Amino acid sequence: MANKNLIDLDAMSKKQLDMLIKKAKKIMENPADYRHACDGKILATLFYEPSTRTQMSFQTAMLKLGGRTIGFDNPLNSSVAKGESLKDTMTIVGGYADIIAMRHPVEGSAMAASMYAGVPFINCGDGGHLHPTQTLADIVTLSCEKGRLDNLKIGICGDLLNGRTVHSLIKALSQYDNNSFVLISTKELQVPLYIIDILEKNNCKYEFSNDLASSISDLDVLYMTRIQQERFASKEEYEKQKYVFVLDKEKLAKAKEDMIILHPLPRVNEITVDIDDDPRALYFKQALYGMYGRMALILLLLQDDDFMLKDREISVIDKRCTNPRCITAREEYLPNRSYLKLGMQMCDYCDKRID
Amino acid sequence: MANKNLIDLDAMSKKQLDMLIKKAKKIMENPADYRHACDGKILATLFYEPSTRTQMSFQTAMLKLGGRTIGFDNPLNSSVAKGESLKDTMTIVGGYADIIAMRHPVEGSAMAASMYAGVPFINCGDGGHLHPTQTLADIVTLSCEKGRLDNLKIGICGDLLNGRTVHSLIKALSQYDNNSFVLISTKELQVPLYIIDILEKNNCKYEFSNDLASSISDLDVLYMTRIQQERFASKEEYEKQKYVFVLDKEKLAKAKEDMIILHPLPRVNEITVDIDDDPRALYFKQALYGMYGRMALILLLLQDDDFMLKDREISVIDKRCTNPRCITAREEYLPNRSYLKLGMQMCDYCDKRID
Amino acid sequence: MANKNLIDLDAMSKKQLDMLIKKAKKIMENPADYRHACDGKILATLFYEPSTRTQMSFQTAMLKLGGRTIGFDNPLNSSVAKGESLKDTMTIVGGYADIIAMRHPVEGSAMAASMYAGVPFINCGDGGHLHPTQTLADIVTLSCEKGRLDNLKIGICGDLLNGRTVHSLIKALSQYDNNSFVLISTKELQVPLYIIDILEKNNCKYEFSNDLASSISDLDVLYMTRIQQERFASKEEYEKQKYVFVLDKEKLAKAKEDMIILHPLPRVNEITVDIDDDPRALYFKQALYGMYGRMALILLLLQDDDFMLKDREISVIDKRCTNPRCITAREEYLPNRSYLKLGMQMCDYCDKRID
Repeated sequence: MANKNLIDLDAMSKKQLDMLIKKAKKIMENPADYRHACDGKILATLFYEPSTRTQMSFQTAMLKLGGRTIGFDNPLNSSVAKGESLKDTMTIVGGYADIIAMRHPVEGSAMAASMYAGVPFINCGDGGHLHPTQTLADIVTLSCEKGRLDNLKIGICGDLLNGRTVHSLIKALSQYDNNSFVLISTKELQVPLYIIDILEKNNCKYEFSNDLASSISDLDVLYMTRIQQERFASKEEYEKQKYVFVLDKEKLAKAKEDMIILHPLPRVNEITVDIDDDPRALYFKQALYGMYGRMALILLLLQDDDFMLKDREISVIDKRCTNPRCITAREEYLPNRSYLKLGMQMCDYCDKRID
Repeated sequence: MANKNLIDLDAMSKKQLDMLIKKAKKIMENPADYRHACDGKILATLFYEPSTRTQMSFQTAMLKLGGRTIGFDNPLNSSVAKGESLKDTMTIVGGYADIIAMRHPVEGSAMAASMYAGVPFINCGDGGHLHPTQTLADIVTLSCEKGRLDNLKIGICGDLLNGRTVHSLIKALSQYDNNSFVLISTKELQVPLYIIDILEKNNCKYEFSNDLASSISDLDVLYMTRIQQERFASKEEYEKQKYVFVLDKEKLAKAKEDMIILHPLPRVNEITVDIDDDPRALYFKQALYGMYGRMALILLLLQDDDFMLKDREISVIDKRCTNPRCITAREEYLPNRSYLKLGMQMCDYCDKRID
Repeated sequence: MANKNLIDLDAMSKKQLDMLIKKAKKIMENPADYRHACDGKILATLFYEPSTRTQMSFQTAMLKLGGRTIGFDNPLNSSVAKGESLKDTMTIVGGYADIIAMRHPVEGSAMAASMYAGVPFINCGDGGHLHPTQTLADIVTLSCEKGRLDNLKIGICGDLLNGRTVHSLIKALSQYDNNSFVLISTKELQVPLYIIDILEKNNCKYEFSNDLASSISDLDVLYMTRIQQERFASKEEYEKQKYVFVLDKEKLAKAKEDMIILHPLPRVNEITVDIDDDPRALYFKQALYGMYGRMALILLLLQDDDFMLKDREISVIDKRCTNPRCITAREEYLPNRSYLKLGMQMCDYCDKRID
């Protein structure tokens, strides 16, 4: 079995990712050809947690395809947030809309919602868990700007421990030939072990660094992320290190001429504003690539019958997920869906191990 | 005189209700025929009180007719809620939009707003007073699923005292031949006396019940509503009775094969989730029928010159309505409009008696 | 150099204002001719401060031109309000939309935002600083209803000190031949000195008044504005004067038959409701004229290559603006742009003098 729901980028094959990139490029080249591609179709953007930029990106994508949008962005005001189950809301909205894009603060909510939507479903972020269309934006940008997804030396700088977009990007790029990674962060904010496992399994080269300036010179790509003060071990540690992970003109001077700088945005202080006009600074253009990637995604989900995403083999088990941040802790009717990974039972919603 | 405002379903004749149902069915059968029916038209959805589901239903209805929507859903942020009178807002929005759908927390606000809108006006709920398009959804569902609006045995279960949708449904169905009602609730939450008067006047059979299980077996329709804990006489009373009015598999097993279950939604605990897949469970489909009913309503109000709703004969009197929850208590400029009912002066806004 | 941004009405020549009025009239006469004028175009309405009426006016304008809209109206919920700089938000939204309309609570934010938008930009109010499209609405109304913008005796009543729309209207009308002004307010709320300078410079006749009743009889136009209780010198002063600046039937009886009454709305108590039906009361129609003015503005900015607004000659200087309410106090990256006026350095964002 297969489905039309983008919950996790893992469910998309390299071939499908390639299809999506090609479609996005075709749209960029001839946007007028697609101005009526989704005439009469409705996208619901259900944002239980505000994310103006992501929501506007999806709305713009649908409008540029000729479709229309409904939805909400103010969950506190919203009646759907008052006691109604995710199942009931999705069942009803799935009757109104042709495709749903949802952001929700709870881990695993995307999988849960997709089970009842009855129409193609796109995860726009489910708590700290997954945010696949951000990674799509990154991949489309790399493909358009570097001309390839392999043979890249990619520096990733900032908070590598908590950043879901970072993990998703590493997972995606580690599948391509001869990519290597420079993981630039404090010791405390290094990538989690399971990401190292993935890198090892895919035979990717990788190295650790705690100094952006000394690592920048041979990178093809520098992916910057926000690092928050409270993530440092102590205030002293923060004061000592706060400039080490900031990209400024001085550090950029050491980079290659054709290195590109990406950032999932919003940016706070980690890239100084005087770099914005440097031709290597592509983080704003990346947001635009993301919009085209979303147009391609909507088109493929709505109109290409062969574009089906992989289903995991799941079973319903006796044990319930014990992750307190999992959607199963809040919505009682959800079945205990689980899948096997390396012999372990994993929660199908939040991907945590069920002991 | 007549008008193009749906404030109260009472103003719609049986013939008009029939027209609306037929139109809704035609749209369901050939939605593509209506995709441009409202091209260039604008619906304003003015929600002074959030109701995401109702608002999305109206927006979807207008978009599927080719029209577009403006409006607001966050009254606390809204400048229209800051000191501007209902009259001023309606006058201005009536200049922008071709039709207005409004929800407002104050009783009688719908009638008041319609007086100044200058374009067709739809009441989407005015406080605890009226909510006619919910009843339209119920009626369209019954007609499509049971094939008739008469000769039905209808059980209504839950809070029958405070539920405006319940009262409106009983009023509408009591006009059709040979319908009978089973009113299932606690003693404290039975229908108000004026509803009994209507049933008597229309020669409808009705009976009271305080036990869903024993009343379910010969119903054609079971209309469930939410019953809130604080409505019970005491906490002990609630604990004793809380399962008596919950529809579950056990009780449903006693029902007829072709009984249908309706609910105005949102549902909380009064219908167990394991019933959702039973073919008799039509509450989600009912929301979809509601959307088609709203499409038909918008079309008839905007495009059918003969579809005019009844005006009440009103006069402006000296006494002001004394209902503290009536819109006349807040908006001083409103004239003291009143109509006669059984020799009594009634407030034209909130339908309460003026003494 | 010139630009496509409407920050301040001063940048629009009389000839351009004339073009805009003509375009607005043509749209009013044949709206159907413009129903597809902006097909495929997107207007972003970014309201960092709620203003439902202005936002709905812009949305309606764009929809009636065949375009579509994205945006937000609830800044507290909005992620763009959380730490992201105006520059970053504008750069991204400028990639999505073809034209941006922004309201923001900080003075000078409009100029700052327009520098990074990359697409035509319309100021919908930047704090207490400017609100040019309100003045456009006033001008279009005068032209349509009086048939001229010159030879008018214009009374302006209420808070003339703090009202940005009042200042903007006086500046605009003082450029036309033979207009005279009656400035009706308390002593404390008279127009600021720089407005008097403008009147003097343009050889406009003007007089002061503290009594609406005695000044109304020979006016061609009465422009009413809200006067707030807390603006009076004391509570006693307020109680003594509160009816002096309220337009009621008694005072209106003394006015000319063809005088017209305008108001930027929302109205609170300064015009009694019983005047609304008087043919001279044009404040609601003014809101509609404003919508047509906005349609004309969007069209000219998007489609007329010759409709370019004047650029000021600016230089980047060493001193930063010291106005604590200026956008430069919040967004550090902004250059110290300044222009010369009567030999003084003025802040290009907030128009305050830089000492």
